[in-house]
Amino acid sequence: MGVSIRFDDIPKGKRNLITDVPGVLVGHKTRSQGDVQTGVTAILPHGGNLFQEKVPAAVHVINGFGKTAGSIQIEELGTLETPILLTNTLSVGDVSSAVVRYMLEQNPDIGLTTGTVNPFVLECNDGELNDIRGQHVKEEDVREALENASVDFEEGAVGAGRGMVCCQMKGGIGSSSRVLVFSGKEYHVGALVLSNFGSLRDLVIAGKHVGPSLAASMDMEEDKGSIIVILATDIPMSERQLKRICKRASVGISRTGGYIGNGSGEIAAAFSTAYRIPHYEKEDILPVAMLAEKNMNQVFRAVISAVEEAVISSMLHAEPVTGRSGNFRDSLANWVREEDFPQV
Amino acid sequence: MGVSIRFDDIPKGKRNLITDVPGVLVGHKTRSQGDVQTGVTAILPHGGNLFQEKVPAAVHVINGFGKTAGSIQIEELGTLETPILLTNTLSVGDVSSAVVRYMLEQNPDIGLTTGTVNPFVLECNDGELNDIRGQHVKEEDVREALENASVDFEEGAVGAGRGMVCCQMKGGIGSSSRVLVFSGKEYHVGALVLSNFGSLRDLVIAGKHVGPSLAASMDMEEDKGSIIVILATDIPMSERQLKRICKRASVGISRTGGYIGNGSGEIAAAFSTAYRIPHYEKEDILPVAMLAEKNMNQVFRAVISAVEEAVISSMLHAEPVTGRSGNFRDSLANWVREEDFPQV
Amino acid sequence: MGVSIRFDDIPKGKRNLITDVPGVLVGHKTRSQGDVQTGVTAILPHGGNLFQEKVPAAVHVINGFGKTAGSIQIEELGTLETPILLTNTLSVGDVSSAVVRYMLEQNPDIGLTTGTVNPFVLECNDGELNDIRGQHVKEEDVREALENASVDFEEGAVGAGRGMVCCQMKGGIGSSSRVLVFSGKEYHVGALVLSNFGSLRDLVIAGKHVGPSLAASMDMEEDKGSIIVILATDIPMSERQLKRICKRASVGISRTGGYIGNGSGEIAAAFSTAYRIPHYEKEDILPVAMLAEKNMNQVFRAVISAVEEAVISSMLHAEPVTGRSGNFRDSLANWVREEDFPQV
Amino acid sequence: MGVSIRFDDIPKGKRNLITDVPGVLVGHKTRSQGDVQTGVTAILPHGGNLFQEKVPAAVHVINGFGKTAGSIQIEELGTLETPILLTNTLSVGDVSSAVVRYMLEQNPDIGLTTGTVNPFVLECNDGELNDIRGQHVKEEDVREALENASVDFEEGAVGAGRGMVCCQMKGGIGSSSRVLVFSGKEYHVGALVLSNFGSLRDLVIAGKHVGPSLAASMDMEEDKGSIIVILATDIPMSERQLKRICKRASVGISRTGGYIGNGSGEIAAAFSTAYRIPHYEKEDILPVAMLAEKNMNQVFRAVISAVEEAVISSMLHAEPVTGRSGNFRDSLANWVREEDFPQV
Repeated sequence: MGVSIRFDDIPKGKRNLITDVPGVLVGHKTRSQGDVQTGVTAILPHGGNLFQEKVPAAVHVINGFGKTAGSIQIEELGTLETPILLTNTLSVGDVSSAVVRYMLEQNPDIGLTTGTVNPFVLECNDGELNDIRGQHVKEEDVREALENASVDFEEGAVGAGRGMVCCQMKGGIGSSSRVLVFSGKEYHVGALVLSNFGSLRDLVIAGKHVGPSLAASMDMEEDKGSIIVILATDIPMSERQLKRICKRASVGISRTGGYIGNGSGEIAAAFSTAYRIPHYEKEDILPVAMLAEKNMNQVFRAVISAVEEAVISSMLHAEPVTGRSGNFRDSLANWVREEDFPQV
Repeated sequence: MGVSIRFDDIPKGKRNLITDVPGVLVGHKTRSQGDVQTGVTAILPHGGNLFQEKVPAAVHVINGFGKTAGSIQIEELGTLETPILLTNTLSVGDVSSAVVRYMLEQNPDIGLTTGTVNPFVLECNDGELNDIRGQHVKEEDVREALENASVDFEEGAVGAGRGMVCCQMKGGIGSSSRVLVFSGKEYHVGALVLSNFGSLRDLVIAGKHVGPSLAASMDMEEDKGSIIVILATDIPMSERQLKRICKRASVGISRTGGYIGNGSGEIAAAFSTAYRIPHYEKEDILPVAMLAEKNMNQVFRAVISAVEEAVISSMLHAEPVTGRSGNFRDSLANWVREEDFPQV
Repeated sequence: MGVSIRFDDIPKGKRNLITDVPGVLVGHKTRSQGDVQTGVTAILPHGGNLFQEKVPAAVHVINGFGKTAGSIQIEELGTLETPILLTNTLSVGDVSSAVVRYMLEQNPDIGLTTGTVNPFVLECNDGELNDIRGQHVKEEDVREALENASVDFEEGAVGAGRGMVCCQMKGGIGSSSRVLVFSGKEYHVGALVLSNFGSLRDLVIAGKHVGPSLAASMDMEEDKGSIIVILATDIPMSERQLKRICKRASVGISRTGGYIGNGSGEIAAAFSTAYRIPHYEKEDILPVAMLAEKNMNQVFRAVISAVEEAVISSMLHAEPVTGRSGNFRDSLANWVREEDFPQV
Repeated sequence: MGVSIRFDDIPKGKRNLITDVPGVLVGHKTRSQGDVQTGVTAILPHGGNLFQEKVPAAVHVINGFGKTAGSIQIEELGTLETPILLTNTLSVGDVSSAVVRYMLEQNPDIGLTTGTVNPFVLECNDGELNDIRGQHVKEEDVREALENASVDFEEGAVGAGRGMVCCQMKGGIGSSSRVLVFSGKEYHVGALVLSNFGSLRDLVIAGKHVGPSLAASMDMEEDKGSIIVILATDIPMSERQLKRICKRASVGISRTGGYIGNGSGEIAAAFSTAYRIPHYEKEDILPVAMLAEKNMNQVFRAVISAVEEAVISSMLHAEPVTGRSGNFRDSLANWVREEDFPQV
């Protein structure tokens, strides 16, 4: 649902979530008990069989200090063929395996009469609040996140975001959306972030550099984290165009104070729901569509402000969390009020 | 017209030239006098106004020891908006400027009411036979190459290929084409190379390693050169797919004995004539088309053998040339006979 | 000399110019008469023979709607072997040719007993204020820029920046530097930008979003431009590390309000003067050095604020210019005062 | 131990295995029972703590129809910090998790007082002979492969190669090495492949196109597979140079008949053992070294022929295997004799 703050003049979507892009579903499974503060978040481009009906997609590595699995094939083929899963860094392997099994169940042909499947799993390090060494995310957690997938979903310290830390405050899952009109038709751009980056002194909210005064009240820490950005749209776009919008995620992050720190696994991925690529292509030539390049600036601006809002939303929606070894991260909502910023 | 040698079982096109792709035109201007042995070759995706009606395109750098200009924008926007020009390394700047002026004449809007234009100029170093330091390619040479553009064109020691050396023998311009059928319709894949690479001992013709015996009769030299590969097709392809076929150029080169030497400027570029991208896009959403990915292997095989043939054709068509300081390069045709290899 | 505004707490260099990196020289040639408002800027990593003593370098394309020449070889070999030249888009070819001739004069071996040379020329479109179609930059302009190279140089509407427009105001050349200490030794990071991008409403100065109020007094325009960023350092860095700092240029640009517009040729290049790569390598194995990766965040922050300052400095130093067809761009200095922002 | 066939005139290493590079160790765990024909292969750059003492490394995607995990961070940081694991496609997740646990045991600081760890796991699809849907590779298999690591190791239908198919014959693990001399000192280049690609009709052995006659005796199949190439060297190289040698793997593959098929996950990775990058860098500036670029051609030729030999060796060493659903793949050794090709 994003926040009530005004970031620019592009209309927000109805839910102000990535699920404003028709067909997109998001589900979480949160693991929260003592030292275990972690989870899984699933993003589905559509509710059908993704292996059979792939969607055009792209990935862009803003900074590669990260362990994302599945990007190579998306880059080569320009398609996404599984749900996107977010989790903690050391659980990428287990989550990949769980996604594989989920896809195998749905598709008895995979690995038998047709090729294999490419799970796409992205991560941030939640080791500050979570016993990440314990690899606590289990197969049933992945299943539950997938089963929970819905147009309505929570933001903040939930799912993969449970243990994340952003600008020294509690981070996690944030989302937002924008509405654009081309040839009289409404289209949507949605962003979902897993925020786990930044230094408090750098924090900017809607152009206000609030970081220094907040930082004055706390001990400073070195930036260690990462951020994952997922972009969805129903605008017809080629893989090249989807890659271009991924690159603009970086501007949205910069506007919140991010600077692409050395240790950041900073990855953006984007997909379009405007057309599907069938696994068993019946036609030799596939009709597709792309946005006229002259319209890209509108999409870029929508992406940037949706990402910017999603980061701030992830922090404002996150409850305070006490986790591993009693480590504590407060909610930004206990320090700033949405109403003190320009409102929509 | 390629050669009569059989490289695989994919049918060759009518002319066995890149111009078998409907609309494609090629023109040369050859400069040959004493120490000046150089020139320009122009490849036009269509005979219309390329700035107004761009074609989808891609570039792939196999090895970047080269001075190609214009690749960055093609990579970003996926379109080619000028003729492709080939020339010698130290004339890239002058040829770029000449192309700009040619485009300015055709398009009074460029740089005034619309943006600028991106000349695409590729090169090899012909310094062995040509006084390359003299930068002898002039604006009128570029104009003549463009004006000479036709479906029929010569191969060998002509145009940009005039001073090139391939496997110690005379290299230059070679071309070949293949015909593929999808959904009952004929499509074409054409290759044009500017060959200037390789060591004689490595030379392979249609699977026969002829290099060692030829090399035994000559002084050996270190490989110093480069190769440019231009691919054209009327198959509908996305920029991503065009990039994929560029990457297969490398296999065709390998089959002739190339090994991507350290000093090689080895660049492949591809365009499709299946649809055009208007500079002034009237629609917000453009319908385009792409080949079903399952069909890519057929295209890859066609590209590989067309490139392989184009390299051999460049050498077999090249006449012997005596150039700078009396340096001499013989024609491969004086050492091997086409008929000694498997025939179509 | 940058500006007196405080962007962060990293000390600025003595001159607050890219030439604070020892050995680096910058020279301009400005062409200003009526419709001709353009020029050339040269950046030299050192005053010696650059072809004989190359420096490690990297290039990063932030957005590729640009016509930079020479990037492919830098990417492949990780070295810069000529001065860097900045100019207008349609003069890239002529400037490339002029650089080639300049290098040929210095190096009688190029193209004769050794390979060719790779001119590195970057550009922005100054067509709003300059008759860019006239390709007014001549060989003697390039020579003069090179001859003018010095540790002291002007910023603003000079050299390649003469006709540039940034956020609707006069843009051009800006520079700044930062000082870092590793193991008790002072090192320098310098930035030089050619600013020609952005929308006034987006303009941010040192965290203050001044754009909207300024834009209220002027007609709004669509962002059409580009920005080139050159980074220099005497910190020992590998090509990979130089590429990493190039990527942070984007954050500095974002902080001034840039959003990587569709039409932007947004290119960053970086070189280190810490060691040289001889053209004729006498040793088989070269000892080099690199910064410990743990220190990269300090360099990233230095790069980001130097780039941010360089952009603002380019605007505050630019005088108002009336150019082609009487088009006029005012100086930002006529609308804001440095003293109204936080001072060093 | 490679094969006795002569591929070029560069001397082979003592063992003619990747382990001729001092310090490198390889271990297998083979799973072979009925429908389960799969396994794991581990390659260790050195026998010490790889997380604490990383080695310079690079990855190159020849064709990205693959599910390799861990490449993004290697690309960004230029270092490898775990053993390299090879396995089947659908077991990448489980193997990644197992590697993480192995690293956690060795390093109590990971995820607690320092960052996380990046497992590097590459794969091919062995579904023809193996019940790949069963994900039969278990944690103990990974442990055993790691524990088995030694300078001596088997080639053929072992480890990750157990179920692989190459050119319709039995494929798997192959290895070879070359010796080069720089400044009077011996250096080594080693290759290890996991071969699972190609069509029999394309097979070339040491320049002899043996495929067509072999194919005449068997039913033809469409190429579906992949190949992984691991390169090791003790030559000092920068990450850029390591990437360059990765790119030449493609030439070696081409020489055996490969054409980078659409469905191929074709990935090359390389590391140097010449220096190490400590996790806890004590110095601010690290002295490193690189090969003079003029020497790269020698390394390229060594890489190419080592890869070519490793592919042929993988097939000639592989025993016939009957696997899933009784599917059978014969050994190439039953069809050709090493002695029929030129010998060293």
